[in-house]
Order: sequence, then structure tokens, then C-alpha cells
Amino acid sequence: MADNVNPRRYDSPVRERRAEATRSAVLDAAERMFTARGFVRTTLPAVAEEAGVSLATVKLAFKTKTELLLNVWHRTLAGGVDDRVPVVERDSYKAQFEIADPVERIRFATSSGIVIRQRISDLMAVIEAGAAVDDSLAELRRRMLEERWHVIREFTQRLADDDHLRPGLSVDQATDEFWLLNHLGNYRLLTETRGWTADQYADWLNRTLVHALLRPELYQ
Amino acid sequence: MADNVNPRRYDSPVRERRAEATRSAVLDAAERMFTARGFVRTTLPAVAEEAGVSLATVKLAFKTKTELLLNVWHRTLAGGVDDRVPVVERDSYKAQFEIADPVERIRFATSSGIVIRQRISDLMAVIEAGAAVDDSLAELRRRMLEERWHVIREFTQRLADDDHLRPGLSVDQATDEFWLLNHLGNYRLLTETRGWTADQYADWLNRTLVHALLRPELYQ
Repeated sequence: MADNVNPRRYDSPVRERRAEATRSAVLDAAERMFTARGFVRTTLPAVAEEAGVSLATVKLAFKTKTELLLNVWHRTLAGGVDDRVPVVERDSYKAQFEIADPVERIRFATSSGIVIRQRISDLMAVIEAGAAVDDSLAELRRRMLEERWHVIREFTQRLADDDHLRPGLSVDQATDEFWLLNHLGNYRLLTETRGWTADQYADWLNRTLVHALLRPELYQ
Repeated sequence: MADNVNPRRYDSPVRERRAEATRSAVLDAAERMFTARGFVRTTLPAVAEEAGVSLATVKLAFKTKTELLLNVWHRTLAGGVDDRVPVVERDSYKAQFEIADPVERIRFATSSGIVIRQRISDLMAVIEAGAAVDDSLAELRRRMLEERWHVIREFTQRLADDDHLRPGLSVDQATDEFWLLNHLGNYRLLTETRGWTADQYADWLNRTLVHALLRPELYQ
């Protein structure tokens, strides 16, 4: 019991690498098909064929089409780092807390958010279009909103810990406001319908978040 | 030419009253069918039958199903006053400009907005569900967003005329921000997904609009 090495790593390194390669191939295939055909017209057998694996392999790893889309989503959101590590434990997320000034920390957080937004927008369109006709996707979208809320709550909790939140503002209320203002729908309304640039949006979001969340003496 | 009485009022008062009654009957029938069946499954012949008029009468007055829905929308939005008078010319809209204090004027505007929101929410759901599958409805929604933008611009223009806008804020930018924050989607995210009450939403909207739009010395 003194040996704390995970025995699976020694039992089957080849099998693990193969499983990883299979997972990537299925997620690649699924991402291509979802964005080209939409959710409804993508089927698990077609994804399996496109990935060059059996249908049983796809079902064993991802269970349902909705869960497969959730995994594609998480991988796209992660953008190159391991999407199975929770967001709040990733180095890229933790880096923002090294910024002491809360105004600068908010600016850093919103800039990162806009970069991610550009990476996920095609897939988000797939999810939104599908959610209108498929209840499991509507439920998936609800879960995604909830996941984002919890990631933002970690951020606002840190502001509270540092006594940066404006008087009377609870962590949950701060999280709700950040979560709302930063919602993709608002980005779309301003950039697509009103023609704002991404920079104009970032300026607006920073100013509004700073006024919503922080003690006035921190930015005046 | 000294006589400025509209001759039609004397030519056919009975015909005018009849035309008005027909318009109301068609709009009533259309509102019932749209909210019960949705946009796609409502047809002009079915609306005509429900209203007890000919299909030709419906088409003559409203041209297309989309235009019929737009007229139902405007009437619901108007809530008892003549929906053919532009919003910015209605007494209920002009009343808010009698409030001199801009903070109170914003509060009055957002309270009226929340009342209207409750009246229109069923019809808005019809339009949103339909817009996902019907291009003419997607275009209608775009026009509705634009109409709302122009109504809000009249409001922010008055703030600018009274020199109440915060320094550096243009009337168009102020309009964009008001239009965005007040968007129905944001109300839904906070009340339905996060469980806020209408009062909590109103408090949030007022505080955020005041900070977004007004000179700081007006509210500090």
C-alpha cells in the first residue's frame, strides 16, 4: 500500500493510448458532422463510420448522441488542454487569480472569454438550433448554463474573499449578474444586430461588470 | 379648401365601423389560433373561418400570415390603446417625460416595460418558436428588435437633450445599452433560469441602467 503508482498505467499503456486515440477520432468525427449537418441529422452509426470505429465503441464511450455532443462541447471549450480536468482546476483558469487588481482581473477574464467565444460559436449554433426541437438538447443547454454559472461563482467567491465586492452584494447575486452580462446571446445582439466590434463589446462588458461587482473606491 | 374635415368620415361612418369590427374579429381569431397552435400550424383560411369572414377579406387587410402576426403583436403591445398610433406619440409613452428626475424617469420606464412584458410573453414565445423554422418570422423578429430600438432612442435622446447622459456616451450607444439590458432574453435568464422575482429584476435593471446611462452626480 506504500506504492501509490496507479497500477493501470503499468498494466496497459498501449491500450490506454489506443483508447485515447479512439476517443479523439470519435470526437473529431462528431464535431465535423454536428457542425455540417446539425444535431437532428447526425446519427451515432454515421459518426462511428466517419471515425472508423464500431457503433458499440461509440455507445460504450459516450452512451447517447446528446452526451457525445456534450463531450465535443467540453473539448472545444477547453481548446487544447485536457477537457476532463474541471475548468476551475486548469492552469489557464487559475492564472487569473495571480492578478491582484480586481479591475485588471475582470479585464483578463472577459478577454479570455471572448477568445473562447470565437472557438465555440459554430457548435453553440448547433446546440441552439437543436434545442428548439429536441428536449434532451434543451436539457443539455440548461446544464451548460449551470456549469458556466459555477465557474463564474468561483471567480466572484475570490472577489468576496478579497473583500472586493460592493457592499450588499452577495456572491450568488454577483455570479448571476456576471453570468447574465457575459451571456453569448448578449454578445450576439450587440455584434450581429447592432454592429459592435469585439473590442467595443469588451469595453462595454468590462465597464458594466466593474460597476456591477466592485466597491466603487476600487475603480473611481 | 377651407374645409379641413376629412370627407371619408361623412361618406361612410357605418362602413368604417364595420371595417373596424372586422379587423378586431380577425385579430382576435388570429391571436387565439397563434397562441394555441403556433405559427406554422395556423393558416389564413382557418383564421378567416374562426373570425367568420372571407379569406379574401383577411388577405386584403393583412396580406400575409407574417403581417397578420405583426398586427396581432402591435395590438397586444399597445394593450387597449390604438395600435396604429406610433408608440412614441401615445399619451402613455409621453407621460414619462413629465418626470424631471432622470433616475425616477428610468424607474418609471422599466416598470411600464415589465407590465407590458407580462402581456406579450405568450405571443413572444410563438414568434421565437416560429422564427427558428420560418425565415419570414426571423425577419419579423428582426423588425421588432429594430422598432424597440427606435422607441428607446427617443428616450435616450431626451436624456441627451437634458444633458443627463454620462460624459462620452453617445445617444446611439446609450440606446444600444438600454435596448440590450432590457431585452426579454435577459429577463428570462434571470427569472426562469436563476429564479429571480420580477421585483429583483426591476431593481437590477434600474441600478444597471442608471450606472450605464447617467452622469454619476445624478445618482450618487
